[in-house]
Amino acid sequence: MTTIRIDSERLLADLDKLRTFGRCGTGVVRPAYSEAELDARRWLAERIAEAGLEVAVDPVGNLFGLPPGDDACILIGSHSDSQPEGGWLDGAYGVIAGLEVARASLEADGPRIAVVSFQDEEGRFTTLTGSSVWAGQLTLAQAQRLTDDEGISLAEACRQPEGLPAPADVAPERFRSFLEIHIEQGPVLDTAGERIGVVENIVGIRSERLRFTGQQNHAGTTPMHLRRDPVQGLVRYVNDLNARFAEIVTPATVWTVGHVAVHPNAPSIVPGQVDCTVQWRDADTTRLDRMTEIVRETASEIASSIGLELERSGYATIAPTHCDPALVETLAEAAEAVAPGAWRRMPSGALHDAANASYRMPMAMLFVPSKRGISHSFEEDTERADLVLGVEVLAKAAASL
Amino acid sequence: MTTIRIDSERLLADLDKLRTFGRCGTGVVRPAYSEAELDARRWLAERIAEAGLEVAVDPVGNLFGLPPGDDACILIGSHSDSQPEGGWLDGAYGVIAGLEVARASLEADGPRIAVVSFQDEEGRFTTLTGSSVWAGQLTLAQAQRLTDDEGISLAEACRQPEGLPAPADVAPERFRSFLEIHIEQGPVLDTAGERIGVVENIVGIRSERLRFTGQQNHAGTTPMHLRRDPVQGLVRYVNDLNARFAEIVTPATVWTVGHVAVHPNAPSIVPGQVDCTVQWRDADTTRLDRMTEIVRETASEIASSIGLELERSGYATIAPTHCDPALVETLAEAAEAVAPGAWRRMPSGALHDAANASYRMPMAMLFVPSKRGISHSFEEDTERADLVLGVEVLAKAAASL
Repeated sequence: MTTIRIDSERLLADLDKLRTFGRCGTGVVRPAYSEAELDARRWLAERIAEAGLEVAVDPVGNLFGLPPGDDACILIGSHSDSQPEGGWLDGAYGVIAGLEVARASLEADGPRIAVVSFQDEEGRFTTLTGSSVWAGQLTLAQAQRLTDDEGISLAEACRQPEGLPAPADVAPERFRSFLEIHIEQGPVLDTAGERIGVVENIVGIRSERLRFTGQQNHAGTTPMHLRRDPVQGLVRYVNDLNARFAEIVTPATVWTVGHVAVHPNAPSIVPGQVDCTVQWRDADTTRLDRMTEIVRETASEIASSIGLELERSGYATIAPTHCDPALVETLAEAAEAVAPGAWRRMPSGALHDAANASYRMPMAMLFVPSKRGISHSFEEDTERADLVLGVEVLAKAAASL
Repeated sequence: MTTIRIDSERLLADLDKLRTFGRCGTGVVRPAYSEAELDARRWLAERIAEAGLEVAVDPVGNLFGLPPGDDACILIGSHSDSQPEGGWLDGAYGVIAGLEVARASLEADGPRIAVVSFQDEEGRFTTLTGSSVWAGQLTLAQAQRLTDDEGISLAEACRQPEGLPAPADVAPERFRSFLEIHIEQGPVLDTAGERIGVVENIVGIRSERLRFTGQQNHAGTTPMHLRRDPVQGLVRYVNDLNARFAEIVTPATVWTVGHVAVHPNAPSIVPGQVDCTVQWRDADTTRLDRMTEIVRETASEIASSIGLELERSGYATIAPTHCDPALVETLAEAAEAVAPGAWRRMPSGALHDAANASYRMPMAMLFVPSKRGISHSFEEDTERADLVLGVEVLAKAAASL
């Protein structure tokens, strides 16, 4: 088996360089939009070419680096766009890691490896836009009509930097497996003092928006027993939900009431209406189904017990994705070789482009720790040594594929 | 004892007429401001003069109708301003009732009775502005500097309609007692099928704004046991508050969490911060004190048990007011005579100008039912027969004073 020796100084310098471009002071690029973003894209294309890879851009704006030759190769990548106040590693790390492993494998005459930076993962237009079109989950025409918060369509926003090749399809059939390395974006590895996570699945996500309507009233003259107060309804609802979920969840299951809007929201008025959104995530579809039932049954019971009207809307569901078992084993062996005893198997609680890739080819993922679990924030960070270690595990696994 | 015979057609016609003036289609006037409001004020002054009373306006804009003679007299009144989308009876009823009883008593050669319409009860500038200045709780200079939501000061907003006398003090010493009749603004009488409420006290009000700060986080990657989620804190807080209050309250005690603000308020983010306001009302100061302790202790316990920071701010307190026991008995006797078995003694859960009057003279209040308990709404209404009945009780009581 070839040894793919990565150049850790080059990896870290490229990550630092990418940070200097773009919006929000983070240096990670959003979809082709501002001059700084076009500059970042042009720089990334130059680095791909310098690594000996062919630069290719597909019609939705995914940027590839392809090794010489025609046989199906390994694809490694992530995204280089960022949340508005996002950090420097979410996505960018996986792109630079893919570039370095592809470069090093070419140098070592190892397996043929391509790199990709997917367009608009963070959802300026919709979540995972670029990989959805590439994997055939969304048509190009549908994607081009999507608009951002300012009403600008993807078709209008996409600009092609000078010097890049004309857009052309880069078919998934050109690749035989997909690997993605990403920061964990959660506290599990950091809290446990571990350095690598081998992802077994990407959790499914469900959410539902609920509206409890009661009777708006004077907060002084309405006795407690005659109130139909939807804030009290919300409190009982979340309380009961916690208790019922506790009987069926695993330690990896999560649920969140992150959005609450009270109307009219004045201290002297018994509220008339509360909107809230419940979101729940788990890797097991049966458990997600059972949670959906609990979300709905509990809401109905609380509403009828205190005389509230209940409307449910905006139910959303994203199916869980399972990583390829053989690839997971390969990553696990590499992790144990490079970081013995300092890694774990775990689910991904966040969505990733890898979920789309899995529709077309075997897929697996690696995590490195996020300091204090912080992501989507300027504070997002990972130890340099862990950034390098993660890419070493990735390179070792890729060498054996 | 003289019988003061009220003219019920005149009473209802005057109430209907007042409804035709002013903002929001309600016909009840706000402080001298728009032409329609000035018209309403001018009309009210004309009706006071037609009733044989002397029109007087004090420096803050309270409008009085004074009977002939110099001895201290009974004062009956309320306010004729309204909430932005308020109904036609909140305040206006008590002013027209006072006018009719004063007129009828003069006609019947009964006790000398004056009427007052207090300025800005509803709080364009501050709550109970006019009666606060008149009773000496606020200086005229302080009141004139108060501004509304648009930054207009009371001094700027007050305009004197043509034809009204120049402003001059109308000292509280000119009056020997104060009576106010008002719609209940709550559902107690309507629900019980009763027609008169004899108010024993006006509840005290306390409120406190609380801020729970946790750790904003990714809703997918943060395990439940590592979260410091202030929405979960709020739910446990309100739940515990309900349980602890239940051990010390009476059926007349009320508490409300009417204001909740979640940050950043997005379905996919574990919230970082929740602001909420708790308000509680009771007629007993000792109970209010105990509730303050529970509000604070429970918040501290919840915050420390799940690792939230707690900030308390905006603590506000309005003391309970007790009606004059002798006046309460006089009103109770009149209620039993006019509406036998169809009345009750009760607290007022809302603040009224009567609370300010009580600083200077014996005070008591009557309520008539609010249909379905609705007030501060265009839907606010009371049966015509109940409006008349209430003034008959008021007139009978006044005749015996």
